[in-house]
Amino acid sequence: MNTETKDLASPVLHDEQNRLDERQIRIDKVGVKGLRYPVRVRDKTHDHQDTIGLFNLSVDLPQEFKGTHMSRFLEVLNAHGREIDVMNISDILRELCTKLKSSSSHIEMEFPYFLEKKAPVTGAPGLVDYQVKFAAAMVAGHFELSVTVTVPVATLCPCSKAISERGAHNQRGYVTLTVKMGRKTVWIEDLVRIIEDSASCEIYSVLKRPDEKFVTEKAYDNPVFVEDLVRNVAQRLNAHPDLSWYRVEAENMESIHNHAAYAMIEKS
Amino acid sequence: MNTETKDLASPVLHDEQNRLDERQIRIDKVGVKGLRYPVRVRDKTHDHQDTIGLFNLSVDLPQEFKGTHMSRFLEVLNAHGREIDVMNISDILRELCTKLKSSSSHIEMEFPYFLEKKAPVTGAPGLVDYQVKFAAAMVAGHFELSVTVTVPVATLCPCSKAISERGAHNQRGYVTLTVKMGRKTVWIEDLVRIIEDSASCEIYSVLKRPDEKFVTEKAYDNPVFVEDLVRNVAQRLNAHPDLSWYRVEAENMESIHNHAAYAMIEKS
Amino acid sequence: MNTETKDLASPVLHDEQNRLDERQIRIDKVGVKGLRYPVRVRDKTHDHQDTIGLFNLSVDLPQEFKGTHMSRFLEVLNAHGREIDVMNISDILRELCTKLKSSSSHIEMEFPYFLEKKAPVTGAPGLVDYQVKFAAAMVAGHFELSVTVTVPVATLCPCSKAISERGAHNQRGYVTLTVKMGRKTVWIEDLVRIIEDSASCEIYSVLKRPDEKFVTEKAYDNPVFVEDLVRNVAQRLNAHPDLSWYRVEAENMESIHNHAAYAMIEKS
Amino acid sequence: MNTETKDLASPVLHDEQNRLDERQIRIDKVGVKGLRYPVRVRDKTHDHQDTIGLFNLSVDLPQEFKGTHMSRFLEVLNAHGREIDVMNISDILRELCTKLKSSSSHIEMEFPYFLEKKAPVTGAPGLVDYQVKFAAAMVAGHFELSVTVTVPVATLCPCSKAISERGAHNQRGYVTLTVKMGRKTVWIEDLVRIIEDSASCEIYSVLKRPDEKFVTEKAYDNPVFVEDLVRNVAQRLNAHPDLSWYRVEAENMESIHNHAAYAMIEKS
Repeated sequence: MNTETKDLASPVLHDEQNRLDERQIRIDKVGVKGLRYPVRVRDKTHDHQDTIGLFNLSVDLPQEFKGTHMSRFLEVLNAHGREIDVMNISDILRELCTKLKSSSSHIEMEFPYFLEKKAPVTGAPGLVDYQVKFAAAMVAGHFELSVTVTVPVATLCPCSKAISERGAHNQRGYVTLTVKMGRKTVWIEDLVRIIEDSASCEIYSVLKRPDEKFVTEKAYDNPVFVEDLVRNVAQRLNAHPDLSWYRVEAENMESIHNHAAYAMIEKS
Repeated sequence: MNTETKDLASPVLHDEQNRLDERQIRIDKVGVKGLRYPVRVRDKTHDHQDTIGLFNLSVDLPQEFKGTHMSRFLEVLNAHGREIDVMNISDILRELCTKLKSSSSHIEMEFPYFLEKKAPVTGAPGLVDYQVKFAAAMVAGHFELSVTVTVPVATLCPCSKAISERGAHNQRGYVTLTVKMGRKTVWIEDLVRIIEDSASCEIYSVLKRPDEKFVTEKAYDNPVFVEDLVRNVAQRLNAHPDLSWYRVEAENMESIHNHAAYAMIEKS
Repeated sequence: MNTETKDLASPVLHDEQNRLDERQIRIDKVGVKGLRYPVRVRDKTHDHQDTIGLFNLSVDLPQEFKGTHMSRFLEVLNAHGREIDVMNISDILRELCTKLKSSSSHIEMEFPYFLEKKAPVTGAPGLVDYQVKFAAAMVAGHFELSVTVTVPVATLCPCSKAISERGAHNQRGYVTLTVKMGRKTVWIEDLVRIIEDSASCEIYSVLKRPDEKFVTEKAYDNPVFVEDLVRNVAQRLNAHPDLSWYRVEAENMESIHNHAAYAMIEKS
Repeated sequence: MNTETKDLASPVLHDEQNRLDERQIRIDKVGVKGLRYPVRVRDKTHDHQDTIGLFNLSVDLPQEFKGTHMSRFLEVLNAHGREIDVMNISDILRELCTKLKSSSSHIEMEFPYFLEKKAPVTGAPGLVDYQVKFAAAMVAGHFELSVTVTVPVATLCPCSKAISERGAHNQRGYVTLTVKMGRKTVWIEDLVRIIEDSASCEIYSVLKRPDEKFVTEKAYDNPVFVEDLVRNVAQRLNAHPDLSWYRVEAENMESIHNHAAYAMIEKS
């Protein structure tokens, strides 16, 4: 879509944004925020899945221009179609730089992502939802992408188990992992697996009684502090050939408190 | 999926939920809440659209039973497939009653819904997102359905316009309308249209400069208080042949305050 | 504060809100929403505590008037001072009716409320936070008040305990109880106590190791389904002399799922 | 409070957290998150005000220890009392390092903060609420503090005004400013003032008709893009003697769209 042609259709309208700005202050990011948009993302098992993205799109603005042209962010997104993935997100970034005459561009897109999971004993199928975020940037022609996944898990407290004659407090926790993508793409599914293997037990949507017995006993046999959880993830990531940087956070919705226990490791 | 067969596969596991309860207290609703699930809903223009639903599913529990069987809610939803609409939602409700041996069942499903909209002057296309909720119930064999839509609009203050020499404060507002469906189904698109026609101006995702001039002047020419907004909607709904009950709420994110202005009409 | 005198100070300003409305539609509620305001509420132990309220204030608007006067809601609240409790909330409601010439008025005020609680074995002191809401109305001179408390608790699953050889899944749950106040006021503290006594174990902010052992074992010894939780609360409320109506909801943040288990009983 | 004495009272309880950890991975932050706690903060006009803080407290954990002692975070906070300000926050940080045997400690505290503001013409008094966050750290004995304020403002679009024959779209925006405190403390009130002076008009809680006329016309006379807003703030901050680093973000809840316009400047 040629925005210039459109603007010619109304030649009398003053272009306030193109005015010279005299404050001499460059803007790091300017754009649109909180835009919901249906997208299709790649899926390791089924090729793709349809979901809803929440977008932030921005570019830099040199000190001499008064404003950016907000409608062009939407036009670039619309022109591109609904398929957005690790491969083509750099095309959108480049087009934002071109259409908005900027040297850098940024896309953040957050969306729910679903994985099929069979119950551990009965094999009853179900869908588990994860929150995923892509943060991509094109800065001076250089492409960067980080992927964040938030994964619900079960954690059982080692201290509570060690000191109690029966039972042990456990709870739902959330692990949030951000990785910087290198040359080789890492699948969301693989990041989820690393996290789920690091907890007391993974989470399911359908559990029949034999499954509930299994997950209860598995969690009891694998107690982890929030500290263990992030260390277990870090240990697996340190051994991964394609990940140069990560930050892993864990937050336990403690069943004995009304606040969370929290731990974080960032690879330096 | 036959949950009884599954349970036979593990005959030794005690069924705690089936125990007799002696407190003599019936439970109005018991089930699962906050379940995210991908769905396909009907769309007036394109036949359907894919979105993400947030579900609450529940049934009643007679006073003699200790507990319900939570996994069956998921099994009914999984067995049904992802297409959920005004037509087939009653099938799911009936199946919940059967599988959970209850006399009433409830489904609440909230989801983002997108409509294509062309900019008013240039015709530039874009998608606007609306929040929609279905609340359906089967009570003693009787089916009930209400639909709620939340629509963003622009409102311009009549008082500010009347007393000021230039300009008038305006802002984004949200109108939330719930209608009870009667024999004839009313489209989401038609409810959105009624609301958008009741505001100072409707909202777009892409606006080029000629469009921005148009919406600015249109809003200025059609000032509405939050009171006018709900009355305009009510007036249109009162004239609608297929709607017996409604509640309409409007909330203006006032640009001159850090709180909202609010109005509500419920048809008695 | 006399708003009429103020308005006289600017006699030329047109009063748009006072214009006659011809749509013949009465508005049930009109006012301000989402207003944050510091308040002082009554406290059974320390006489009072300071907190932050989130307010919705509204009145009805007869069909002949075009609009209400929004600034008067704030003026009534400001004139009243920061002490707001079950006793004096009816004064504010009456003043809203007078100042806004309406036959009904409504106040909703939600706020965090803190109780000191000693750890069960070591006696280590701590503060637990609860969410409380007052919903008060003056309709045709008749005063009504309901109080809602949301209480975090620990719940341990009876099914998981019964079928597993070791451990039992447990989690944080939230019980939300609304009661209509009758002639005699019921303290927030007493509603919290009823709920905490109905769970597997209550929640603390400070727990040393001997306390953690105690709460772990207590929860293991008192398993409750979400169904048991609401029934336990209902049973205690049914026996309470000063409560004619209630609704109790429980929501467990299941540690084995990424959704909640839910139950609700409403006294008819 | 001596946690060691407490622990002696139950000498048989194993200290799981003190065990040696063999994964050789240091944890950057471990602690409690999402803790609500009543606090008293300093206020330029009235000496102090009572509010509710939402806390994250953390320390680092050397690679050789399996876990931290979560209850001590609460004990340090409880022992300190409710007065928390820029002056004494370093005491809490030091005590966290001591009690938890760590080399670094972090406190984040977010809270609503209220300022009295008189309406611009009638002088009608009211309270405006702002969101404030302190983020403080003690790293290797070095104290750092940043303060974040989020300020609601009114913004009127220069483009809309320039191209339209009447009116101009405007809306509520939020400016979020983070500054690093240097040797001299900067008051919250002064940061708010810098931001409010940078917008089309500041926001009030009580506005009578003459005030509404004033703010409407003032906003119309001072149009600012979201770009202008962050540049105006940056320009004032660049001239401030006591601020070495800042990040300013603005987000306009556009009245013509269902998404926000966004801009950000970070001082390098």
